[in-house]
Amino acid sequence: MRSDSREADNLRPVAIQPGYLKYPEGSCLVEFGNTRVVCSATVDEKVPPFLRGAGQGWITAEYGMLPASTQKRTIREASRGRQKGRTQEIQRLIGRSMRCAVDLGAIADKTIWLDCDVIQADGGTRTASVTGAFVALCLALQHLKDAGLINSFPVKSMVAAVSVGILNQEKLLDLNYEEDSVAEVDMNLVMTNDGKLIEIQGTAEQEPFSKEDLDALIALAKHGIDQLFELQREVLPGLF
Amino acid sequence: MRSDSREADNLRPVAIQPGYLKYPEGSCLVEFGNTRVVCSATVDEKVPPFLRGAGQGWITAEYGMLPASTQKRTIREASRGRQKGRTQEIQRLIGRSMRCAVDLGAIADKTIWLDCDVIQADGGTRTASVTGAFVALCLALQHLKDAGLINSFPVKSMVAAVSVGILNQEKLLDLNYEEDSVAEVDMNLVMTNDGKLIEIQGTAEQEPFSKEDLDALIALAKHGIDQLFELQREVLPGLF
Amino acid sequence: MRSDSREADNLRPVAIQPGYLKYPEGSCLVEFGNTRVVCSATVDEKVPPFLRGAGQGWITAEYGMLPASTQKRTIREASRGRQKGRTQEIQRLIGRSMRCAVDLGAIADKTIWLDCDVIQADGGTRTASVTGAFVALCLALQHLKDAGLINSFPVKSMVAAVSVGILNQEKLLDLNYEEDSVAEVDMNLVMTNDGKLIEIQGTAEQEPFSKEDLDALIALAKHGIDQLFELQREVLPGLF
Amino acid sequence: MRSDSREADNLRPVAIQPGYLKYPEGSCLVEFGNTRVVCSATVDEKVPPFLRGAGQGWITAEYGMLPASTQKRTIREASRGRQKGRTQEIQRLIGRSMRCAVDLGAIADKTIWLDCDVIQADGGTRTASVTGAFVALCLALQHLKDAGLINSFPVKSMVAAVSVGILNQEKLLDLNYEEDSVAEVDMNLVMTNDGKLIEIQGTAEQEPFSKEDLDALIALAKHGIDQLFELQREVLPGLF
Amino acid sequence: MRSDSREADNLRPVAIQPGYLKYPEGSCLVEFGNTRVVCSATVDEKVPPFLRGAGQGWITAEYGMLPASTQKRTIREASRGRQKGRTQEIQRLIGRSMRCAVDLGAIADKTIWLDCDVIQADGGTRTASVTGAFVALCLALQHLKDAGLINSFPVKSMVAAVSVGILNQEKLLDLNYEEDSVAEVDMNLVMTNDGKLIEIQGTAEQEPFSKEDLDALIALAKHGIDQLFELQREVLPGLF
Amino acid sequence: MRSDSREADNLRPVAIQPGYLKYPEGSCLVEFGNTRVVCSATVDEKVPPFLRGAGQGWITAEYGMLPASTQKRTIREASRGRQKGRTQEIQRLIGRSMRCAVDLGAIADKTIWLDCDVIQADGGTRTASVTGAFVALCLALQHLKDAGLINSFPVKSMVAAVSVGILNQEKLLDLNYEEDSVAEVDMNLVMTNDGKLIEIQGTAEQEPFSKEDLDALIALAKHGIDQLFELQREVLPGLF
Repeated sequence: MRSDSREADNLRPVAIQPGYLKYPEGSCLVEFGNTRVVCSATVDEKVPPFLRGAGQGWITAEYGMLPASTQKRTIREASRGRQKGRTQEIQRLIGRSMRCAVDLGAIADKTIWLDCDVIQADGGTRTASVTGAFVALCLALQHLKDAGLINSFPVKSMVAAVSVGILNQEKLLDLNYEEDSVAEVDMNLVMTNDGKLIEIQGTAEQEPFSKEDLDALIALAKHGIDQLFELQREVLPGLF
Repeated sequence: MRSDSREADNLRPVAIQPGYLKYPEGSCLVEFGNTRVVCSATVDEKVPPFLRGAGQGWITAEYGMLPASTQKRTIREASRGRQKGRTQEIQRLIGRSMRCAVDLGAIADKTIWLDCDVIQADGGTRTASVTGAFVALCLALQHLKDAGLINSFPVKSMVAAVSVGILNQEKLLDLNYEEDSVAEVDMNLVMTNDGKLIEIQGTAEQEPFSKEDLDALIALAKHGIDQLFELQREVLPGLF
Repeated sequence: MRSDSREADNLRPVAIQPGYLKYPEGSCLVEFGNTRVVCSATVDEKVPPFLRGAGQGWITAEYGMLPASTQKRTIREASRGRQKGRTQEIQRLIGRSMRCAVDLGAIADKTIWLDCDVIQADGGTRTASVTGAFVALCLALQHLKDAGLINSFPVKSMVAAVSVGILNQEKLLDLNYEEDSVAEVDMNLVMTNDGKLIEIQGTAEQEPFSKEDLDALIALAKHGIDQLFELQREVLPGLF
Repeated sequence: MRSDSREADNLRPVAIQPGYLKYPEGSCLVEFGNTRVVCSATVDEKVPPFLRGAGQGWITAEYGMLPASTQKRTIREASRGRQKGRTQEIQRLIGRSMRCAVDLGAIADKTIWLDCDVIQADGGTRTASVTGAFVALCLALQHLKDAGLINSFPVKSMVAAVSVGILNQEKLLDLNYEEDSVAEVDMNLVMTNDGKLIEIQGTAEQEPFSKEDLDALIALAKHGIDQLFELQREVLPGLF
Repeated sequence: MRSDSREADNLRPVAIQPGYLKYPEGSCLVEFGNTRVVCSATVDEKVPPFLRGAGQGWITAEYGMLPASTQKRTIREASRGRQKGRTQEIQRLIGRSMRCAVDLGAIADKTIWLDCDVIQADGGTRTASVTGAFVALCLALQHLKDAGLINSFPVKSMVAAVSVGILNQEKLLDLNYEEDSVAEVDMNLVMTNDGKLIEIQGTAEQEPFSKEDLDALIALAKHGIDQLFELQREVLPGLF
Repeated sequence: MRSDSREADNLRPVAIQPGYLKYPEGSCLVEFGNTRVVCSATVDEKVPPFLRGAGQGWITAEYGMLPASTQKRTIREASRGRQKGRTQEIQRLIGRSMRCAVDLGAIADKTIWLDCDVIQADGGTRTASVTGAFVALCLALQHLKDAGLINSFPVKSMVAAVSVGILNQEKLLDLNYEEDSVAEVDMNLVMTNDGKLIEIQGTAEQEPFSKEDLDALIALAKHGIDQLFELQREVLPGLF
């Protein structure tokens, strides 16, 4: 039994509240247990220099944590004057994952900024961010389509993410912070709704893991991600 | 009639949700209309160098805005690499206001970090932050007292804040963003529950204002702040 | 009697030396007792991005202190790599105050940079800066008018500033550093020569203050500022 | 046939020159085709704050690129004032991979700094860095053991890394820059000499990939990494 | 005849006003024609880490320019967030020159901070800074000796500096900005009162110069520096 | 006899390996004994703002050290977030020296970036950098000429540099680190092949030096630099 009484292959209670913010074109509040992330998608009518005149749009992401979101207060990156490596790694992951699922040619000359801000962190903030950012992104794209600013809804597949890991040699789905901080193996998977992989990041924290472990972890992740797609469909009616 | 159908001397609907976060000793979500701020108070068992051995504690504040909290997306200060002057001004105001209301000798050798993070901004974020930070601070201090870590509840008076301003020569209470951005005079007041002033910051944006205007604005602010004290008392039962 | 033998309602000896620098369009050295500030106004033939094409000019201010200007040497902000919150607060105050007194439409497409650099600090550096910056600004605007670069002298009213405070329950005008560092209430007022307010910033450092205290402090400040207008008139002959 | 006339499952010519630098305890120059990286391991007789008194040592890595190492000159990060997200991601990967292979208890109270500096970049700089850093690390640890500063050679397994990818639907080993920049899938694997995984990072750049693709890529990577272990053994005689 | 009607081997009018500032232990205002620099020497009762316990003191310098000191307003380094290479080069030169003239063992465990802030720049700011910093330093050391904090006056020789250059093939002493900006060769010399060199920095801006040119420039500089020693002696009575 | 068994007037073994890098237009690896520097020259088809439309090109230099290049590991400037004063001083020296030897009008609208990265440091890194940068620069200019992008080979004279110094009152050529760190006088000279000076930077570290010492040091430097020109000619066949 896990610390929060879950079975090894159970997700934490997941909730997605669409339209959480008033100003951005798309937004949601996503919760994986105690992990709570505000995700938003804002449309900017220009592209970065390297894409000017390329007939393509761009999707980029930024990630942040409120100082009081963590068990021990985290120093504010704005006051520290730079973002940590972990922050940059996560925002690059979110951006890449979303760009992979969207036809960038269909949003030519626009940049969509995805902001994922962690209000409360209890493990899995990057997978909750990916899962929520996809919802915010779809809402913004739907808004653009409804406003006649793009011709079609340019999402090629659904995207969600979950963490899996090995703890005391047991394979667990959707680790909370307590589990994550002592896991032997920690893995994040971003997948599409046709069962393919967009990103896989697996790290042995103490002990290397075998190919068999990897296979089992991927199957476990897919089991969880399929449930996330169900939740996304509920808050994105008519889109998938 | 104002843009949101309020009378000139009406506050927007104000709500304070105490205990909004799991980890910090005190926290709340405060809403002034569409303005939404997460406030937290975290206790750190040390003081800044200039207070070491002084038999005093310290209270300091940090303020931030989510990029998507504003009508037009704001650049993330962590990514920009420094905090804006406005940010620093606001966090200095919050810190000073709280220190003025607390017996710092009673929290010797502790620092209380107040974090005010704006989830959604529609004017009045600094006054909502002061009003919410006071609630988070009281909850943290009550927690310290309940845990036997301090001997008494060291708050000398209640603290709340509101904005007032002059728009089209009319004096308005609790300006929203639309009003604030075109006001002729903009003023923020931090007051105590015995009707005294902790901070007054008044700025003529276009036209200088008279002493009579100032007097009327202060009276209007006091009218609003008294209602905020009622709301604070409700979420801090037994303390005031 | 005060530490420097002044009466409670006396200014320190104030001196303004116009044309102190060779290169900027306007400049002065302003002294309030031992506080000495070099103020300059430099004209730049462009405006910040948000004003391009708006038919308006801009006025902005920067403030700095020489490391050896203070009782204990201050770390150089250029070497530290960022400006302190206090610095940013003061430069924002100076800029706002000056913009309020000038018809920005009359200086379309120009930015005036006001630099206030403290050579020696003994309290009241921000009020001396405002008072001196106004002189430098007028000299630069007169220069622009004389050179035919603007059509009229676009200053709507004179601007000066002074500090007041409460120390040992006595209300004092123009606090020096020794007084300022232990005052119970500290207030800075920026006023116009028709007795109106441009900025009021009052802070209770230890004890909140009453509305009656506020009224008395404002009257005391007005008494001092009126004398500053006399001094400004002397160095700006024919303008006011 | 690939652009450099290799078969799909061929590594580029790989060379490792141990003892490349005079001062650090361990070093090498590693080449994967035109990719050339200087790797060094320097021993510091202290640990980061979070490990003080913990009876453990630490291994950390930094990564950099000479401006002229790339096809188009890259801006120097020291002159830009901050490291890119990519840089931070790579140095975190190198550090984690090495820590996983070493008994940190055996190097108590020491930090080993691994520096990987890319002299010339033609794809695969991060995998060359991991492969070379392991050699530099072993040389430094052997030096510590020979000097009697640690009791045993604390490396639990060999570590090497290679990239694999999918290009025009063909699976390729050890991508050069030309291939890497247009690959549909890009994957980096860090493995041990008993065939286990330390890190797997796979990214779909355009098209998501299937579990079958993943399996084939891992097998291909293992085929290449086994050859890297042979080369490491040659320059680390008697150690493995 | 030069632009300011000087002969080729004439200094500009030089003035040194000792005791210009109230707080630092030593200070002066130094003027070389229109170039005006505030120099100060502040004593700090500790040394940098690399000198702790070494029985030595330290002398270090910082240099800055007011934004309005130059013909065209210079961006404030504090607002830009970093010091320019030129600034760092000059402050290193000042520090080295002074350390060379003082017995550092006699000021054990103290650091003397020299601040040279340019109020107005018309060429030769670095040589004016060296010349003035020496005066401020001597005043601070004399103050330490008078206060019984050091046993002897630890200055081994007087130090002053001047610029020389070649313009239209003519050798000139003490270049002003107009001359400096178009000179073919620009040279700064720091010398002692027994005719020896502490620093020589000569730069061909367009045409390399011969050994004979160098010899003539050094003789010209010595001619000027000897006059500076006279002026220093006048404001440092009884010391040299 | 010197620590490395050289005579006082001997250079260390010097080697220059042209074409060391694949991508930049010119490059070399230069070695002065154990000092090893990678030098490259990259052509950029634009000029800095102050030269736009001026019919001139520009040459600028950057300098860096690998962290493990020094006896004790040096903190990476990219991770520290800013370049040290020493770094900026050296890169300014390299840039100025090269600009002096090239007809900038002949490379109109182009910037040549010189990067000098120290792989291993044993004294004399700045003089090795100048000597190697000249080779890289010539190779890049020859490349431009061969490609028809410039009309003539625009180098007016050869440039090389060496250090000299006084140690135990003996004058030494080409100091290694051990000598440099304890020298009484340290001097760097940049000269042309017709025996003229481009830069001279001499510093008394402890004792001022006489004009006679200066003359002897310059003669000694010329003796060494003449040998460097021979080596440059060998790797730049047909150019000089």
